[in-house]
Amino acid sequence: MTDLDAREVLEKLAAGELDIDAAERLLRLDYVEKIGNHTVFDMSRECRSGIPEVIYAEGKTPEKAGEIVERLIAKKGMLVLSRASDKYYEEITKRIGTDGVTYKPEARMIVIDRRGCVQENIGRIGVLTAGTSDIPVAEEAATIAEIMGCEAIRGYDVGVAGIHRLLDPLKEMIRQDVACVIVVAGMEGALPSVVAGMVGVPVIGVPTSVGYGLGAGGIGALTTMLQSCAPGLVVVNIDNGFNAGATAALIAKHSH
Amino acid sequence: MTDLDAREVLEKLAAGELDIDAAERLLRLDYVEKIGNHTVFDMSRECRSGIPEVIYAEGKTPEKAGEIVERLIAKKGMLVLSRASDKYYEEITKRIGTDGVTYKPEARMIVIDRRGCVQENIGRIGVLTAGTSDIPVAEEAATIAEIMGCEAIRGYDVGVAGIHRLLDPLKEMIRQDVACVIVVAGMEGALPSVVAGMVGVPVIGVPTSVGYGLGAGGIGALTTMLQSCAPGLVVVNIDNGFNAGATAALIAKHSH
Amino acid sequence: MTDLDAREVLEKLAAGELDIDAAERLLRLDYVEKIGNHTVFDMSRECRSGIPEVIYAEGKTPEKAGEIVERLIAKKGMLVLSRASDKYYEEITKRIGTDGVTYKPEARMIVIDRRGCVQENIGRIGVLTAGTSDIPVAEEAATIAEIMGCEAIRGYDVGVAGIHRLLDPLKEMIRQDVACVIVVAGMEGALPSVVAGMVGVPVIGVPTSVGYGLGAGGIGALTTMLQSCAPGLVVVNIDNGFNAGATAALIAKHSH
Amino acid sequence: MTDLDAREVLEKLAAGELDIDAAERLLRLDYVEKIGNHTVFDMSRECRSGIPEVIYAEGKTPEKAGEIVERLIAKKGMLVLSRASDKYYEEITKRIGTDGVTYKPEARMIVIDRRGCVQENIGRIGVLTAGTSDIPVAEEAATIAEIMGCEAIRGYDVGVAGIHRLLDPLKEMIRQDVACVIVVAGMEGALPSVVAGMVGVPVIGVPTSVGYGLGAGGIGALTTMLQSCAPGLVVVNIDNGFNAGATAALIAKHSH
Amino acid sequence: MTDLDAREVLEKLAAGELDIDAAERLLRLDYVEKIGNHTVFDMSRECRSGIPEVIYAEGKTPEKAGEIVERLIAKKGMLVLSRASDKYYEEITKRIGTDGVTYKPEARMIVIDRRGCVQENIGRIGVLTAGTSDIPVAEEAATIAEIMGCEAIRGYDVGVAGIHRLLDPLKEMIRQDVACVIVVAGMEGALPSVVAGMVGVPVIGVPTSVGYGLGAGGIGALTTMLQSCAPGLVVVNIDNGFNAGATAALIAKHSH
Amino acid sequence: MTDLDAREVLEKLAAGELDIDAAERLLRLDYVEKIGNHTVFDMSRECRSGIPEVIYAEGKTPEKAGEIVERLIAKKGMLVLSRASDKYYEEITKRIGTDGVTYKPEARMIVIDRRGCVQENIGRIGVLTAGTSDIPVAEEAATIAEIMGCEAIRGYDVGVAGIHRLLDPLKEMIRQDVACVIVVAGMEGALPSVVAGMVGVPVIGVPTSVGYGLGAGGIGALTTMLQSCAPGLVVVNIDNGFNAGATAALIAKHSH
Amino acid sequence: MTDLDAREVLEKLAAGELDIDAAERLLRLDYVEKIGNHTVFDMSRECRSGIPEVIYAEGKTPEKAGEIVERLIAKKGMLVLSRASDKYYEEITKRIGTDGVTYKPEARMIVIDRRGCVQENIGRIGVLTAGTSDIPVAEEAATIAEIMGCEAIRGYDVGVAGIHRLLDPLKEMIRQDVACVIVVAGMEGALPSVVAGMVGVPVIGVPTSVGYGLGAGGIGALTTMLQSCAPGLVVVNIDNGFNAGATAALIAKHSH
Amino acid sequence: MTDLDAREVLEKLAAGELDIDAAERLLRLDYVEKIGNHTVFDMSRECRSGIPEVIYAEGKTPEKAGEIVERLIAKKGMLVLSRASDKYYEEITKRIGTDGVTYKPEARMIVIDRRGCVQENIGRIGVLTAGTSDIPVAEEAATIAEIMGCEAIRGYDVGVAGIHRLLDPLKEMIRQDVACVIVVAGMEGALPSVVAGMVGVPVIGVPTSVGYGLGAGGIGALTTMLQSCAPGLVVVNIDNGFNAGATAALIAKHSH
Repeated sequence: MTDLDAREVLEKLAAGELDIDAAERLLRLDYVEKIGNHTVFDMSRECRSGIPEVIYAEGKTPEKAGEIVERLIAKKGMLVLSRASDKYYEEITKRIGTDGVTYKPEARMIVIDRRGCVQENIGRIGVLTAGTSDIPVAEEAATIAEIMGCEAIRGYDVGVAGIHRLLDPLKEMIRQDVACVIVVAGMEGALPSVVAGMVGVPVIGVPTSVGYGLGAGGIGALTTMLQSCAPGLVVVNIDNGFNAGATAALIAKHSH
Repeated sequence: MTDLDAREVLEKLAAGELDIDAAERLLRLDYVEKIGNHTVFDMSRECRSGIPEVIYAEGKTPEKAGEIVERLIAKKGMLVLSRASDKYYEEITKRIGTDGVTYKPEARMIVIDRRGCVQENIGRIGVLTAGTSDIPVAEEAATIAEIMGCEAIRGYDVGVAGIHRLLDPLKEMIRQDVACVIVVAGMEGALPSVVAGMVGVPVIGVPTSVGYGLGAGGIGALTTMLQSCAPGLVVVNIDNGFNAGATAALIAKHSH
Repeated sequence: MTDLDAREVLEKLAAGELDIDAAERLLRLDYVEKIGNHTVFDMSRECRSGIPEVIYAEGKTPEKAGEIVERLIAKKGMLVLSRASDKYYEEITKRIGTDGVTYKPEARMIVIDRRGCVQENIGRIGVLTAGTSDIPVAEEAATIAEIMGCEAIRGYDVGVAGIHRLLDPLKEMIRQDVACVIVVAGMEGALPSVVAGMVGVPVIGVPTSVGYGLGAGGIGALTTMLQSCAPGLVVVNIDNGFNAGATAALIAKHSH
Repeated sequence: MTDLDAREVLEKLAAGELDIDAAERLLRLDYVEKIGNHTVFDMSRECRSGIPEVIYAEGKTPEKAGEIVERLIAKKGMLVLSRASDKYYEEITKRIGTDGVTYKPEARMIVIDRRGCVQENIGRIGVLTAGTSDIPVAEEAATIAEIMGCEAIRGYDVGVAGIHRLLDPLKEMIRQDVACVIVVAGMEGALPSVVAGMVGVPVIGVPTSVGYGLGAGGIGALTTMLQSCAPGLVVVNIDNGFNAGATAALIAKHSH
Repeated sequence: MTDLDAREVLEKLAAGELDIDAAERLLRLDYVEKIGNHTVFDMSRECRSGIPEVIYAEGKTPEKAGEIVERLIAKKGMLVLSRASDKYYEEITKRIGTDGVTYKPEARMIVIDRRGCVQENIGRIGVLTAGTSDIPVAEEAATIAEIMGCEAIRGYDVGVAGIHRLLDPLKEMIRQDVACVIVVAGMEGALPSVVAGMVGVPVIGVPTSVGYGLGAGGIGALTTMLQSCAPGLVVVNIDNGFNAGATAALIAKHSH
Repeated sequence: MTDLDAREVLEKLAAGELDIDAAERLLRLDYVEKIGNHTVFDMSRECRSGIPEVIYAEGKTPEKAGEIVERLIAKKGMLVLSRASDKYYEEITKRIGTDGVTYKPEARMIVIDRRGCVQENIGRIGVLTAGTSDIPVAEEAATIAEIMGCEAIRGYDVGVAGIHRLLDPLKEMIRQDVACVIVVAGMEGALPSVVAGMVGVPVIGVPTSVGYGLGAGGIGALTTMLQSCAPGLVVVNIDNGFNAGATAALIAKHSH
Repeated sequence: MTDLDAREVLEKLAAGELDIDAAERLLRLDYVEKIGNHTVFDMSRECRSGIPEVIYAEGKTPEKAGEIVERLIAKKGMLVLSRASDKYYEEITKRIGTDGVTYKPEARMIVIDRRGCVQENIGRIGVLTAGTSDIPVAEEAATIAEIMGCEAIRGYDVGVAGIHRLLDPLKEMIRQDVACVIVVAGMEGALPSVVAGMVGVPVIGVPTSVGYGLGAGGIGALTTMLQSCAPGLVVVNIDNGFNAGATAALIAKHSH
Repeated sequence: MTDLDAREVLEKLAAGELDIDAAERLLRLDYVEKIGNHTVFDMSRECRSGIPEVIYAEGKTPEKAGEIVERLIAKKGMLVLSRASDKYYEEITKRIGTDGVTYKPEARMIVIDRRGCVQENIGRIGVLTAGTSDIPVAEEAATIAEIMGCEAIRGYDVGVAGIHRLLDPLKEMIRQDVACVIVVAGMEGALPSVVAGMVGVPVIGVPTSVGYGLGAGGIGALTTMLQSCAPGLVVVNIDNGFNAGATAALIAKHSH
């Protein structure tokens, strides 16, 4: 029962076509629908905030992932398959054709946008990585932000080899007035803290699962970022480029 | 040596009052100063971003804290003493008088603003808590945001006793177009995830050190927030209300 | 707006005292109320399942706890203060009188039941402890189950000194057809597993924070219970007697 | 020596066919048998509670598993091989034939029931999963419960995409009066807590080893479930669908 | 019903004073007793192995501990209160008098032996500590072993200040043919491993909760001992002097 | 150079056959020998205690392991290669022939004894396992004990299927007067604690890396054993069958 | 802009070829360059301290690593590829030829030195390992120290089989006056502590990821080294031979 | 008995002034001394390396500590009591007088030097702290280094408020050619890594137990320092200023 139906019930009651008891009973049923459609568990987020529905490909076969895509694409404006290789792209295009399907290998993502949901021009964000190993996670972040309509200014592998490696992209980001900066780093994960001390906008730290020994698997970098004294630094879970990108876009969108 | 001094050196060189070697030597010294004043380690952040200098009182005696305040207040526009009781307030006002000194007991904070650094009207943020035990951390967040010029809309103890406890403040926040929502929660820490699914703005989750057994001390809540599937949710360390508030204000400021 | 109000709206619409638009607007507001009162976040659980609202006293002063009780007692049929000493009892009776207020020192609980919510006779459960240190947690479990209408058959300190210490209460429990058995144990926490191998009903293991060295604070007991090969054993968090008691009562209630 | 034998001893003693010493010696031997057959370590559980003997195939070769099955099947009424692929099915049927052997691929289980031990109609339970990756664990739970005679009402992948995805199966479960609900979830593991707040029956949370970063391998989900404030929620170890199913069936059985 | 009683039943049956049914019923009751008295859960260990019943005083008030002692002393030949100060001694002697009650302050133990259960001369063991802080745990071990009839050769604080500090007591121990050596050590816990490389008898390592930083609370010492390559080294939990002493005495007793 | 040699040096010096410098030089060399042979780092253990030198094959290629064996066999009376498959046996016999080389597949061990170092008849020990997966670790323990001259009485897979599965081998062990019992168990690791409560000799618990979820990899079993209240139970690291066997043999040897 | 450029600016200003404003603007730009080239983030370390730029090959394909080498070699005097196999050597020499490229298989390193950056004769260090499995990490340390101009005295596999195995290389190291000793050890990691007690120079402990059970993956060895009471012992992360070698060389260099 | 004495024994034997038995007996005694004085367990370190014997006062009463001092002072040239307050100073001077006893409150140390063991002028080291809370640990390090003869150049609280706070002391340290720099830091512990990137000498990182939430108690800072990519950075355990100071002095001494 949609909003329209509720209106109809009232109209019919006003018109005497329904008695009060029947109207109340029908409206009650409508409540449950409403709870379903409009509140806490409504995850059809792409309608509201432009965040695409994401399917995590890792741990699913291309066949399984393709099957899920096929089932959901009818109901969803936009789908994103993350951690996906070209095998997934082949499977998906074999099932639903290439229309609106884009494969972004650096970000390990397949974007499926059949209704032109990809937004435009809602603001700018910056994406930095400390090393080269951090780039796939950064690309995941940047790509999601782009899908949500942000321009993403990238600066990769800036943690080593001279401060201008860091300063050049950072100055560009500040000049272009980015709404926030995503900083992706593994190992000791100190870069987000340094960047947060240098810019006047929020910094989203993304620890990566690069590292070994005590603090291996990204726990060291995550801990450093959480312990950081630099105000303005917030954190997502290890390797969660998607959430960093989505949050950055939400920040940019509100600024916009 | 200030910028002005560098200018003077150049003027004197142009006027022939200095030879090139002397000018170069003087300017070199100036470099080091510049590096000190204008770059990465310059933490005189209140000049740039409005984030006040914070002194963590916990673990310091009132005397020790008072001594630090006395030493820093000359150089800093604004100081905040966090995790501070009224004993700290007494000690500080005994040392530097009450001028510009405000004690905010709910936030366990003493704000010292001698130069009118507290900003105004840079935007709105929301602050929610799941339980009553989470309120001091939330007040720390809200107060910092207020000092930085935000209006903070509060909704406390909304995790229990009926969804309107949550929905009422949330609707108010959305109506007032908050730039982000801070959600403070201990125990299983599920509220930030729920809120992130309901609003179209970034959510900053603050785990509190409420909880016991496996995941005690806030680790459970922190883990839940980091594992959350809800996009738009970023996290600060356990009980770190200060950083949540400062980041929220930075988000609001950029929107503004 | 209550159910009654919704009815009124419909009646007035039917009576022509309201036009459709106004009716719809009023009913929409009602939706939000309904979501609040009848769905997922509705924690006024005592109405539905007989589980009383619980306030965790630990970490709150008697004054603070008393204040919360005073505020909530009007709206709630029944309140329970857990981890509470006699100081809390004094404070509460000072504020709201002794009517319907019972202090249960072994369970460290204060039960406030002004509307006769305490149920009766919904079934039987068993509560065992391995040692004497586990008794307060067991009493918390037993008392909650009793408040919810269960008869609780106790067998304490059965982990040592001869198997009949265990078998005697266990046989009593089986003879009285308990719906489930709560087993409270610290240290290596092996008792729940033993009991689960002996009875044909579900066993709820409650690890207690008794123990030291590797696995201190109850982690060892919790781990043992989770690793147990004995089917029919489920677990709650360390020292969480309340939840064990409430779940046991739910199991008993359904059997009843 | 069986009970009957003990009777015979007594009869022969009464008849003077045995002297007292011989009778005592024979009865003593009987003691040990009795301890073996009727007490704490008697794990021939399928006789008593209908819980089948389970062999964990993971980490055993099909040959090894087949050999164990072959050895045990003579003595056991019913055997279940969990975490088993079709290779195990081939190996087993090669050894003992197909009589009474069923392979359930979704549950990764092989059920061997030569004596019609599978029970019937002892009650109903509900099984929910948050995501698609949680389904194999849920199927393990549901299948064990079915073997033990329960009807299992399934609702999979209900954690996302609109609340009616959750509400529809939940309402069906409540309408069919399930004795308890198993909720399987990885990542932040919040769903069991939500469900426990919505139903009046016990909820068994099963964390799955889905997740990454801090709290990886299911620790995050397990922690969330243990920290949950929702009464009525009990937990089994990560991925332990078998124990959740067996406990649920025990709850249902007692209700029945 | 004792063994004697079973005999009596048989005699009466043979004498025709009991019919077969009554005899069987009585003997059945006897089974349960037997299970209780002679098998797995029979913890009245002091009868069998000379290991005294121990009550852990830490976390119990002197009153509570005294009450337990008073209740158990009738049934037990020997009781030991561990982690006990002189306040416990006062309380206990106030309740049960000084007869057979000995306070051993270095071991923080009160020994209550009313029936001369303390054994004699079952062998010799060695007890070493690395530092002075480890002595109370070592004394707990030595005292338990003495109660169980061992002579304990002590060598304390041998981890520092010259190898003869270690070699002197070690040579004495070897000359006196100790059955095993207990080595108590905190911090990095390397001493047990060194000793195990030097002696031809088993070494029981006891990690103590001395240490800080990574591996604090004894975890570091425990880990070192478990990782040790030295064969012949076995371990008990942190600070568990009691178990080390009891096991050493069992080893000595068997040699004897 | 032995003690005797030192005597010879002195005799020759007294006899004028050596000058003082030469005597001093020879005696100095003797020092190093002495330190080497008689003190802390003398690991030529097989001479003293019969514990064979062990080479851990896991993580070494057959070639690498073969090379080490070839190098050491000249100097060592006996070598054991643990965690070794038949490929290692082939490689080793290819290098040094089959003389004195025995492959024990159940224990995953290759024993190389060229000088008849394997001892005989020093006593008896018991070895139990809870499950079938624990057998390889148990065989490692039993085999080492056998090499050191013990008779090992085995009882495998006794944790399930009726207490006589446990009692039968246990009674045999007690009747044969074993000096200690090794109990190998994974999962919740409760069996060693049960056995320690039933026998009057020391029990060495060996946790195995069987288990999952919280406490996976054997940490759960290790924790249970360390937390156990059963006196007489000592522990080795996870899967360390070798050390359990060697210690058991040392205990037996001293008894002998 | 280089230093030279700054000089030019001043010369042109003195010569009247630039006005003061232009000079100031140009010098300002120079500042940023200076910050980049001469301060904190200048990682072109090989110019200053002789520490070569290191690329961690593990986790990169030979192609990826080769590409990075090709890009960096123009700008860097010396590059080192660590954790590299011969496949990496082939790829690199295919790209840049063999000139100045050396492959050191024991250290798993490829050294690329086109400008004769490898230094000479800056001092001596010692490198010890406890076992054979620790050798690759030790070789990494020794090789880096050699590249930086140190002579490295090796003593491998000294943790077992007689103290002269340890004493011989140690005496050689002391006689040659090493500036520090690197000690590489896994398992319980006690050797660095022993060595630190014997030598009068700093000891750098390198835990290796050898070990199992509690403290697996090197955590046990790391903890032991950090907990050590031996003064003069400092630590690097697990398996970090590179950093141990570089620090040792820095110590030696300063001595020199 | 020293080497000289051994020579004398031989001379006397050669001269016929001693018979062979007496010579052998005397030399045997010398063995033990040698083992004691020259090998692994000789901890009379102050003789060899100038590292004073340290007694950790924390956890000992002033009386207990005073008693230990009194016992050891006769045998030791120099003693240091760490983590000591003025109460310890009073107790110690009450027992042994003030001669040679110095109390250093900032370092929480009491130095007792009766034989002029404090060395002089062996080199220079630097000591930096990130914050004010880190100063006591830094003073412990600096004071030990001073006792061992180093000049310690301090730079405290340099982690915040402008880079010249860091650069000024750092330049002074480099100008004075320090042999190494100790950097003390809590929270995220990033400063040692930054300093290691700026100086050409080894850096010893000392994590302090400042910090909260994930990584609390110094674990976060320790992890960061171990994960650091900056070569030349080595680490001691949390709060272990003593070891950092002693190692720094050893480095300086060798340079000297």
